[in-house]
Amino acid sequence: MMARKMILSQPQTKYTMMDKEGYQNRLEDALEALLASAQKTSLDEAIRYCILGGGKRVRPLLVYAAGRALNFDPEVLDPAAVAIELIHTYSLIHDDLPCMDDDALRRGKPTTHIAFDEATAVLAGDALQAMAFEVLSQPVHGICANNQLKMLNILANASGSNGMVMGQAIDLTAVGEALLEDELETMHAYKTGALIKASVLMASYSCNETDNADLMVRRSQLEDYADAIGLAFQVRDDILDIQSDTETLGKQQGADIAAGKPTYPSIIGMDAAKQKLLKLHQEALDSLTGFDRNADLLREIAGFIVKRIA
Amino acid sequence: MMARKMILSQPQTKYTMMDKEGYQNRLEDALEALLASAQKTSLDEAIRYCILGGGKRVRPLLVYAAGRALNFDPEVLDPAAVAIELIHTYSLIHDDLPCMDDDALRRGKPTTHIAFDEATAVLAGDALQAMAFEVLSQPVHGICANNQLKMLNILANASGSNGMVMGQAIDLTAVGEALLEDELETMHAYKTGALIKASVLMASYSCNETDNADLMVRRSQLEDYADAIGLAFQVRDDILDIQSDTETLGKQQGADIAAGKPTYPSIIGMDAAKQKLLKLHQEALDSLTGFDRNADLLREIAGFIVKRIA
Repeated sequence: MMARKMILSQPQTKYTMMDKEGYQNRLEDALEALLASAQKTSLDEAIRYCILGGGKRVRPLLVYAAGRALNFDPEVLDPAAVAIELIHTYSLIHDDLPCMDDDALRRGKPTTHIAFDEATAVLAGDALQAMAFEVLSQPVHGICANNQLKMLNILANASGSNGMVMGQAIDLTAVGEALLEDELETMHAYKTGALIKASVLMASYSCNETDNADLMVRRSQLEDYADAIGLAFQVRDDILDIQSDTETLGKQQGADIAAGKPTYPSIIGMDAAKQKLLKLHQEALDSLTGFDRNADLLREIAGFIVKRIA
Repeated sequence: MMARKMILSQPQTKYTMMDKEGYQNRLEDALEALLASAQKTSLDEAIRYCILGGGKRVRPLLVYAAGRALNFDPEVLDPAAVAIELIHTYSLIHDDLPCMDDDALRRGKPTTHIAFDEATAVLAGDALQAMAFEVLSQPVHGICANNQLKMLNILANASGSNGMVMGQAIDLTAVGEALLEDELETMHAYKTGALIKASVLMASYSCNETDNADLMVRRSQLEDYADAIGLAFQVRDDILDIQSDTETLGKQQGADIAAGKPTYPSIIGMDAAKQKLLKLHQEALDSLTGFDRNADLLREIAGFIVKRIA
């Protein structure tokens, strides 16, 4: 096969620190560059439609923010940021399929199987998963090969039958079931939590260090942070499903309730769900004790996740 | 997430050379060990159903045979052999879906979406793809990290929108089209050829050598071999679709013709297709000039591919 060059980014200026918008723009540029050489088939069109179609980019932002908290340059963080967004987007495409959640709207646009067709949606998802591992397996200046292997292993484990895919499988069987709160938590730990944790973990391996005790402590703190905001993200999602509207959400309001899916408000009540959200926010902030001002973006993201309206 | 230990194999005896059946048994053991710790969900059941359900195991056999031709121990070849079979199996599951080829029979058994359901089939395929990269990203004694990254990159590239998935996309749009012979060849180069070439290439990187001139020459010869047998495999498949029967094939005889898919016999005629097969067989053998008796299994596989009845 002709080897497609995976161009990850062509930064215009040299910088080491950016704000939220700066990182988000950086990611959009990297995704655009990655797909610029795509051929003009409907598969490539579908891939561009899904990837360049917006989205909150929470997971890549977490990669950049966790890397910044560790004083890493954005350049070494691009592969993990791009890869995690490719995996997340593939999962949305497949989750929206008629045989799964059967959703017609995503990120404010028709879902991929509506805009194209089901076969193309399945294939676009499959291709995006492969692309994530392709991006992450290209040599990166500033990351040793052993750490890159570790990042690939983290991403693969978090994506598959021991992570995100398992979460979606539990989700499908949970429809109409009266789950206990800890069962709901387990489902989300797989379905959403795994990729969120992978984001900060991959960031922490985006370097040449393999045996740095301080880094290992920081990594463990970042894991705690990810556990808290991962769950908070889902609690907030469940609240928004009830309290927001379709236009703001970019997907059908009330879809989870209508589908008979268990949610935090339906299991523990709306007030308790909101209390839980505040508690998780505090846990996220506490886990960053000892981190300096470079972790402020992580703190900001925790706030964004619990207060977001879409 | 709990990290599942990816156990690849527990060989009973020490050996460096095996015959075809020996390698195939070795692969079955490795796959069984990999899935032994799987939980008892329907997703895990579906994964076991697909992976342990037989199959010719041509691609893993090519990994072992190419590695043997280079005098590599089977131990270092297990990850690539397992990974390529996981990718191949996921592609079969997704290709059989109602929105794709809509096949009910595979490897002599009901296809995954029939034996389980469509959602489980989509998820099992997704999980198997992730599992392939998980297996291949675990440190392997005898393969340096740089070579492992290269193997991951080869597999990801061959699987995605620049390889196998692109081939399936072309295949879907080619239904009912009058393709030229070279267009058919391009489709197969993506759809089948990419993974077959990846098999021998991954084998050639399953070592600690990164800069060995002799190995690079051998690698290039193995690529030529893979090009020839990859295409031969497809020509033979098209002939069998017409001349074999459903029970022998383990899938519906005449399915390609019935679906209006372009095939070699339909484009160039049955006689020319058979001639082409013989020519490709000779090319495969010629590409191995200079290899010693350790390449005999590769020679045997070339013969098997052109003469197989299923």
